[in-house]
Amino acid sequence: MRAAAIEAATELFGTAGYRGATFKDVAAKLGMTAAGLTYYFPDKDALLAAVLQERDRPALVAETAIPPSPSRADITDHVMRILAENIEHPGLAELHCVLSAEATSAEHPAHEHFRDRYRKARELLTDAFEVAIARGEIRPSIPPRTLATLLLGVLDGVQLQWLLDPQEVDMQATVHTFVSDLLAPPESP
Amino acid sequence: MRAAAIEAATELFGTAGYRGATFKDVAAKLGMTAAGLTYYFPDKDALLAAVLQERDRPALVAETAIPPSPSRADITDHVMRILAENIEHPGLAELHCVLSAEATSAEHPAHEHFRDRYRKARELLTDAFEVAIARGEIRPSIPPRTLATLLLGVLDGVQLQWLLDPQEVDMQATVHTFVSDLLAPPESP
Repeated sequence: MRAAAIEAATELFGTAGYRGATFKDVAAKLGMTAAGLTYYFPDKDALLAAVLQERDRPALVAETAIPPSPSRADITDHVMRILAENIEHPGLAELHCVLSAEATSAEHPAHEHFRDRYRKARELLTDAFEVAIARGEIRPSIPPRTLATLLLGVLDGVQLQWLLDPQEVDMQATVHTFVSDLLAPPESP
Repeated sequence: MRAAAIEAATELFGTAGYRGATFKDVAAKLGMTAAGLTYYFPDKDALLAAVLQERDRPALVAETAIPPSPSRADITDHVMRILAENIEHPGLAELHCVLSAEATSAEHPAHEHFRDRYRKARELLTDAFEVAIARGEIRPSIPPRTLATLLLGVLDGVQLQWLLDPQEVDMQATVHTFVSDLLAPPESP
């Protein structure tokens, strides 16, 4: 039941947002009363914490990890795996899109979660770009931290356009071009 | 009073989202009852429409328009003007961030608005990049439409990171690097 509640909350937070969905909505989706749901989760914040934790499962992160000394192809593969997962689970992509946007308010219960998640992602990607630049795989003229911020920005921003207009926006081709072409060093073919 | 109501709704939709803010919340912010506010706006959807219309004022668009045959510097200036406006009005940046994310749901009242707005922005930027590529100002290896999608993605995605963590993310420097360095043709200095 705990897993079913997390699934129901994931779906509702993705479509209606954390703020738009009520604790009672999640209970109703499970065919139970709000009082019944409190047996598993005391309140909506506890549901949100469980949803976010589920999204960050170590197994999920490990599957899509960048190898220690990445080539440009390794970074591209990493990014394309993330996109493939989002295309397979558009509900989770929408959840991320809506919750991260809501969480820009300092008072949102997931504000620290998203702020820290992006800090960590920028760090990991900065390290990966640093090594890839040293290997001659990524253009050296731009600081690795800037590249990390841009790549995360491209992922979120192109995904937003894709979620709004999946027929018109080829998310995979667009992001692939960014990593494998725009980030290639000048001398590469 | 109409303008004040639009301003109050803009602020509330930006912090709480369209779904998280109620018609009554907007009225309360104006020190009036919901019944009183219906004299100006029949419901929350009408408020949303007015807020979106206000954001797309022709004057605002004209001020930041790209000249007909743009250089890379013209495109950079255009983008930096948008960012400067967002930095001056972080509440409007947050409004865009939250509403566009909510609007990824096909049932959201602003879904068509944002889908069409991005279509139009991609078209305008595709045309600008096409001309700039022909002028030798932008790298020619990437289709202009892909560049347009990427630039809009960078703007939204880097802005999300900046809204979450303004001390850590230098939005202006990051976006500037994208346009003036990453998009420069290979032979440029």
